[in-house]
Amino acid sequence: MKKFMNDPKNFVPEMLDGIARANPDTLKYVPDYNLIMRADAPSNDRVTILQGSGSGHEPAHVMTVGKGMLTGACPGDVFAAPPMDYVYESAKLLNSDKGVLLLVNNYTGDRMAWEMAKEALEAEDIKVDIAYVNDDVAVQDSTYTVGRRGVAGNFFVMKAAGALAEKGASLEEVKAIAEKVNSVIRTMGIALSGTTPPAKGEPIFTLADDEMEVGVGIHGEPGRRRDKMKSADEIVDELLEAVVSDLPFESGDEVALMINGLGGTPISEQYLLYGIAHRKLAEKGIKVWRSYVGEYCTSLEMAGVSLTLCRVDDELKELLVEPAEIAIRTF
Amino acid sequence: MKKFMNDPKNFVPEMLDGIARANPDTLKYVPDYNLIMRADAPSNDRVTILQGSGSGHEPAHVMTVGKGMLTGACPGDVFAAPPMDYVYESAKLLNSDKGVLLLVNNYTGDRMAWEMAKEALEAEDIKVDIAYVNDDVAVQDSTYTVGRRGVAGNFFVMKAAGALAEKGASLEEVKAIAEKVNSVIRTMGIALSGTTPPAKGEPIFTLADDEMEVGVGIHGEPGRRRDKMKSADEIVDELLEAVVSDLPFESGDEVALMINGLGGTPISEQYLLYGIAHRKLAEKGIKVWRSYVGEYCTSLEMAGVSLTLCRVDDELKELLVEPAEIAIRTF
Repeated sequence: MKKFMNDPKNFVPEMLDGIARANPDTLKYVPDYNLIMRADAPSNDRVTILQGSGSGHEPAHVMTVGKGMLTGACPGDVFAAPPMDYVYESAKLLNSDKGVLLLVNNYTGDRMAWEMAKEALEAEDIKVDIAYVNDDVAVQDSTYTVGRRGVAGNFFVMKAAGALAEKGASLEEVKAIAEKVNSVIRTMGIALSGTTPPAKGEPIFTLADDEMEVGVGIHGEPGRRRDKMKSADEIVDELLEAVVSDLPFESGDEVALMINGLGGTPISEQYLLYGIAHRKLAEKGIKVWRSYVGEYCTSLEMAGVSLTLCRVDDELKELLVEPAEIAIRTF
Repeated sequence: MKKFMNDPKNFVPEMLDGIARANPDTLKYVPDYNLIMRADAPSNDRVTILQGSGSGHEPAHVMTVGKGMLTGACPGDVFAAPPMDYVYESAKLLNSDKGVLLLVNNYTGDRMAWEMAKEALEAEDIKVDIAYVNDDVAVQDSTYTVGRRGVAGNFFVMKAAGALAEKGASLEEVKAIAEKVNSVIRTMGIALSGTTPPAKGEPIFTLADDEMEVGVGIHGEPGRRRDKMKSADEIVDELLEAVVSDLPFESGDEVALMINGLGGTPISEQYLLYGIAHRKLAEKGIKVWRSYVGEYCTSLEMAGVSLTLCRVDDELKELLVEPAEIAIRTF
């Protein structure tokens, strides 16, 4: 294992410290709960949106905190759900008169922590609700999940909910838009390499030089099958077939098309795949309204990508193009 | 070699097609010269800025074309300078009454192609000039270079020159700001893995599980030395010592601090390094004015980072915060 780090135990806190130092005017770091929060939060003018899950998926979620996105993110250690008290304390700190929406990617450990925190918050009469994300079409149940996994499509949930919250919508409205987006996103991923959590020191799985994992999970969970390496055209065909047939997306639909890098795949390859997918969708009569190419939800240094489609209507288009101010990349 | 691609010969054109499809309103693709250009170019209201170099360094330069950045980019194949006629034809197509500035990272092959193109353009009375970038402090001469190499600091040159051109400045003024920025940027990189050009199919170099290449070039050229893997603290100390002592940057200086991912290193590790570097600069009395963390100039899937400092004054600060519209990532 070669990683840029000091003591593996401090991998997450040192990363969070870096995020805060890089954004001194807009973000604050609360070490006790691994919390990265908007410096101007809480505000009683808008619903608070909190997410977390394990670390190792950056930019999700600690680097997507900001105006028009998350109010805060309180992740656990790498690939580990946050302890319930991180969620509870973060939600209390960021509580707003308009209430708190907890966004949860569907993994058993995450559900447990976030649902227990919700109960504890309700017991103190804090207005709180939960919305779930489960966009991965690869498998029904998985190593850490009953039901479908939440993966990169979560970006569209955060973006739409964040934009609506920024406009002053109610908790009910923000939860409704999160659930609406979740109902129209579908994702599948493919890995070309394993991934190594810092504290573990060994890869979670390995692939031979001519192998790929089709439908991989973002913690290295198995997908649909292990297969021989294929051409980019064949890979896009398989990802599109799985995603398009699931909703299903149909001729005449308008979609946002995301190619998400899983951490170790360069952006050149991501754009190559994007071009192929865009062309093949046009052949199916599905119109790409907007492109999303880059890293949105990673699995440390895993080589691979996922493909997400989000079916858009006028309401979603308006929310998705609202400005967002986040921690990553300053041009 | 596992890459998302079809025929390796089409790696670059398929990537360029993807960039164009992802940005139909703002970019155009001219396949004959590997040219990605602003859809609204040329304009006689502003100096045209053209860059190129080899492919494989994305987002540089084909994904940094747009308002307030490059007017166009015409790269060669992976790690290969563009043929002289790509530069010549692209410059003719994008020619403006205000003239054309050719930005060139200092490699022998690039200089030859761009300088020959400049002569051919001048012979046709086109107003054209060149500015060079050579920010890498690692080594004096290198495999493909006489003098210092141009690496990730080039971002600051593009950004400042692009912002000034957008304001309607003259060719002389835009060239002067490019040269000014080049005089205040210093960079050094470090690799944890090799990099494999698609057509070659084999890594340019390999590193053992406990090795790193200190001062690596962005085409896998050797750096200062090969060393045993070190902690993040020790690595930042070495990069900062090399960069700070070179200009030198001094107590009281204000700087932009960039941690640039070389392609295979996740953003979590990049932010971890950023935090350490920010803290250590503060200890030296050097004030970080603004953070730049992410991939700016890569080497395909190489694991590694580079650290760049850019000393800023009021003029540079104003230019660096001007809006820029580029191809990559849509939030």
